Amino acid sequence: MEAWVEGDVNKYVHGYSPREIQRLQEQSDILEELLHSGTAYPAGSKVLEAGCGVGAQTILLAKRSPAADFTCVDVSQGYLDQAKVNLHKNAISNVCLQQSDIMDLPFDAEDFDHVFVCFVLEHLSEPSKALAELRRLLKKGGTITAIEGDHGSCFWYPETEESLTVWECMIKVQQHLGHDPFIGRRLYPLLMESGFTVKDVSPRWVYADAMNPELMDGVVNKIIVPMTQTARGQSLELGLVDGATWQKGIGDLEKSGIPPGGTFFYTWFKAIAVK
Amino acid sequence: MEAWVEGDVNKYVHGYSPREIQRLQEQSDILEELLHSGTAYPAGSKVLEAGCGVGAQTILLAKRSPAADFTCVDVSQGYLDQAKVNLHKNAISNVCLQQSDIMDLPFDAEDFDHVFVCFVLEHLSEPSKALAELRRLLKKGGTITAIEGDHGSCFWYPETEESLTVWECMIKVQQHLGHDPFIGRRLYPLLMESGFTVKDVSPRWVYADAMNPELMDGVVNKIIVPMTQTARGQSLELGLVDGATWQKGIGDLEKSGIPPGGTFFYTWFKAIAVK
Repeated sequence: MEAWVEGDVNKYVHGYSPREIQRLQEQSDILEELLHSGTAYPAGSKVLEAGCGVGAQTILLAKRSPAADFTCVDVSQGYLDQAKVNLHKNAISNVCLQQSDIMDLPFDAEDFDHVFVCFVLEHLSEPSKALAELRRLLKKGGTITAIEGDHGSCFWYPETEESLTVWECMIKVQQHLGHDPFIGRRLYPLLMESGFTVKDVSPRWVYADAMNPELMDGVVNKIIVPMTQTARGQSLELGLVDGATWQKGIGDLEKSGIPPGGTFFYTWFKAIAVK
Repeated sequence: MEAWVEGDVNKYVHGYSPREIQRLQEQSDILEELLHSGTAYPAGSKVLEAGCGVGAQTILLAKRSPAADFTCVDVSQGYLDQAKVNLHKNAISNVCLQQSDIMDLPFDAEDFDHVFVCFVLEHLSEPSKALAELRRLLKKGGTITAIEGDHGSCFWYPETEESLTVWECMIKVQQHLGHDPFIGRRLYPLLMESGFTVKDVSPRWVYADAMNPELMDGVVNKIIVPMTQTARGQSLELGLVDGATWQKGIGDLEKSGIPPGGTFFYTWFKAIAVK
């Protein structure tokens, strides 16, 4: 494992493993309707996606607004290489990829009609600075759409001490990196403080029980458990947990996804604001 | 303050103060659409409300199903006296009140077409026994509607250590009484284990920010803060917190209800199941 460098924007709780790339893609498909409903850009509009990663959301965005022009940036060239492959596989032609730091974007002021940012602010040390930079690039009257989770919103049944521990370890690792795992609840004040006029903030929640085993499996086994697992190495290294507790905790978390007794809840937040 | 007696069904985290009666009534008005939408009983049907308290939900139930016949029981005669006054004030005539213990109800098997239970299971030591007793009284094909909160679902911004402490104190007091403040997430397995066929469980959530100051004020200042305050005496008595921390925590919790920066989220769960 690499050493952590304070303030290094590459430092990211979930890392860049092949398993994590798979999770990001599966997650975007499972949550497509939940997160993307209501987002469509007019023909010819210039849209900036800041922090596109492997392009998991990009593909959905571009398909849903086929006549808009997307510029999608990410700090990680490795992720952009993967995004390029994904866009090609999905025959997406209205996206331009560009390596760039969200805190210092190489675009002119008021260059974009709209901005889209998803699962990014939670991984930044200074999300309000990033929002101010994004606002600079936005035309007057243009919108920003921000989607972020809130790890404090998550609960499940059965809940055991160890399953809580692994979840809290992921939260602590993210906080140790200087990032905010509870950013969803903060979208309204963050956008407001960054000079935007907030138009809407809505929880986009998922609750699953045995009546919906496919959703349950998707959320618990394809999103939550693999996402939590990305924090295993850093949690052990920081001495937050021992290996045996981690293993039991992950096993217990998986049980919340097993019918008929398990239940699971999580909410993301989607905000729309105007410059 | 009375001494606590283990297993005494009268022991109840929120107590029976005039302020608490006011809270229960304000809460039911604020949450009416959220919790009662979808609940209506046909003319002539016999409905049992188990644990009606001061009649806060009873009034809404009875108004929404004016041609159904309600039998509403509660273990507390004091609460029933208050319910009688409230029903009279609201000119409700399709409700019969009766003092009775939910664990041992004086009715014949299959006496009711439907059962309604709201904010009650969370205050019982053996909720599945109560559900089995309610199932006994229900006709085959009859429904039970159960509404419960989940105190693990609650989060706010700004979150301070002290505001978390007072909220967790209320949770601990309820757990100390042998009750389950996290019962919302458990409605599906509880109903299933009690022999019901579950038809639907839905989160009934509230998220408030400065765009909805009235909802914010209602939820934070008229529901959450006074509800948390009911656990003050017991929290101090159990040594869970000191008075100064309590006072700061309540003040901080109130701040989540103050625009423009505050935000608040909570979810109840509503379940419908059939015998």
